[in-house]
Amino acid sequence: MIHVAVDAMGGDHAPAEIVAGTVMALKEEEGLRVTLVGREEAIAAELEKHQYPRDRLDILAAEEVIRDEDQPSVALRRKKNSSMMKAISLVKEGEAQAVISAGNTGALMAGGLFILGRLGGIDRPALAVMVPTRRGKPTVLLDVGATMDAKGKNLIQYARMGQVYSRRVLGNDKAGVALLNVGAEAGKGNDLVKKAYEGLKGQEGFIGNVEARDLMLGTVDVVVCEGFVGNMLLKAMEGTAGEIFHYVKQEVSASWRGKLGGSLLLPGLKRLKKRLDYAEHGGAPLLGVNGLVIKAHGSSRALAVKNAVAAQAFRFVREDCVGEMASYFEKQ
Amino acid sequence: MIHVAVDAMGGDHAPAEIVAGTVMALKEEEGLRVTLVGREEAIAAELEKHQYPRDRLDILAAEEVIRDEDQPSVALRRKKNSSMMKAISLVKEGEAQAVISAGNTGALMAGGLFILGRLGGIDRPALAVMVPTRRGKPTVLLDVGATMDAKGKNLIQYARMGQVYSRRVLGNDKAGVALLNVGAEAGKGNDLVKKAYEGLKGQEGFIGNVEARDLMLGTVDVVVCEGFVGNMLLKAMEGTAGEIFHYVKQEVSASWRGKLGGSLLLPGLKRLKKRLDYAEHGGAPLLGVNGLVIKAHGSSRALAVKNAVAAQAFRFVREDCVGEMASYFEKQ
Repeated sequence: MIHVAVDAMGGDHAPAEIVAGTVMALKEEEGLRVTLVGREEAIAAELEKHQYPRDRLDILAAEEVIRDEDQPSVALRRKKNSSMMKAISLVKEGEAQAVISAGNTGALMAGGLFILGRLGGIDRPALAVMVPTRRGKPTVLLDVGATMDAKGKNLIQYARMGQVYSRRVLGNDKAGVALLNVGAEAGKGNDLVKKAYEGLKGQEGFIGNVEARDLMLGTVDVVVCEGFVGNMLLKAMEGTAGEIFHYVKQEVSASWRGKLGGSLLLPGLKRLKKRLDYAEHGGAPLLGVNGLVIKAHGSSRALAVKNAVAAQAFRFVREDCVGEMASYFEKQ
Repeated sequence: MIHVAVDAMGGDHAPAEIVAGTVMALKEEEGLRVTLVGREEAIAAELEKHQYPRDRLDILAAEEVIRDEDQPSVALRRKKNSSMMKAISLVKEGEAQAVISAGNTGALMAGGLFILGRLGGIDRPALAVMVPTRRGKPTVLLDVGATMDAKGKNLIQYARMGQVYSRRVLGNDKAGVALLNVGAEAGKGNDLVKKAYEGLKGQEGFIGNVEARDLMLGTVDVVVCEGFVGNMLLKAMEGTAGEIFHYVKQEVSASWRGKLGGSLLLPGLKRLKKRLDYAEHGGAPLLGVNGLVIKAHGSSRALAVKNAVAAQAFRFVREDCVGEMASYFEKQ
């Protein structure tokens, strides 16, 4: 039985959508057990609305909730009894093997790193996102902000962790990995990526540099970069898509042509928005810690929660990704 | 009379669109003189197609052309007689005050820096782009790749150069400047932006951090970042917009609903594409050199060339931006 701890109180639609997504996940995977952590009454009230396998779902009471505006370091020190920190502690105690939260990203990363600790041989953790691509399968992009001021050796470790994730969780047996750079040719970029390039050269699956422009084509399974750059990239993609949809809405409401055209194109535009929404592809795994921490998007609805629990956490644990990373890095 | 040198041979649509845009610019600004640099016969053949003020347009013959695949350092050393390098040299010799090319970006930056030299008080140059925003006026984003491994003091210089540009060329009298960062709060980010933040704090017009997601809202006139990050950001925006239009096309051709809806929305979608295309807003000025170098997008058509010549280079020189930057930095 694979046991996942879910912070029921994190995110814009907690606890309703978190509970609903958890129930969906339990129905999808029979070998899954979940502990929902948070305000008992609120969770119980939501559970009333669903039919679910009672023997595989528990509630762990936690009255405190970490807010988005809480400073991560303060949340970590002062909110030990929060739903998020108690959920992480279930993994630390060996009760659960993975934890999921749609709450405060900084607090979750800090909690994941300090409560669970780093995986042996890993110097710095990385937060990975699943970038939607043209070929359907997402590209794993890491780090998008877990570590600031990374060094070349960190990027080399990210590459390996990303490959394990892509292979084991997404099923890309020969997962290729590329370095995000300003140009495709070797020798391009800043000191950091030049160093990382030297270290990655000749490693299994390394295919060279990739430009940000080509990320969404999905030609590469795994793309590594340092956290500041990855964070910018992710937010630029989000921001651009948001602006385009804003303008399309404006055009649609500007004239009768637009209104009619818009209503006809609506199903297609909705499909497109869904396709581009990386939250639909599940959450962002924090890799390089002892266990698995998944950050679900703050706006996650039930489907995204279900994907994070059943498609990501469940498979990650079943395929023993932590074990594979640990044995690889211990040999280094 | 303001004299601009134009590389007639750079870009995907050279020389036809370059010549056409130059003619448009000459008609718009009576105080403008242009020297077109490149293959004399090809330029003359294009000029045949237009009516233009002959007393304000010259041709400077240059047989060599720098290709996109040429290494910048090699182009700089071996192609001194190319249209691009000869156009830059016109500024060096004091003949022209600005130079524009839609050719090889790396070669143009290398040529601009090494032929013209740095402006006194400036340690490293920055390439600035005009990001299209919701409010209409573009936001000046710099550096997008002129300098790798920038330091805090470089970012502080970029801020000032960007402000001068925004004020003098775009007419934002009280141009505000922000630092691109992973979060809006002070204290966020990597060592580089923390250092830059300290240096910018208290400076005229500095309004703090801005996230990549908010860049296109246009709430800030000038946004500074280091070149690697800026390059990623720009390409991520380009790539995302390109992907979305690719998917929209797919949806449009997938069904009769899509076809009809698409044909009705077409004018709106075209307007949108134009609005998002930063090439429409003119080229990317290389700031911090002795003179002005403008990189027009490789795909520039006549209108973009006209904007680069008349709206950007002409105003930049008329408003003596180089003089203002020089006097500011000499005092530092």
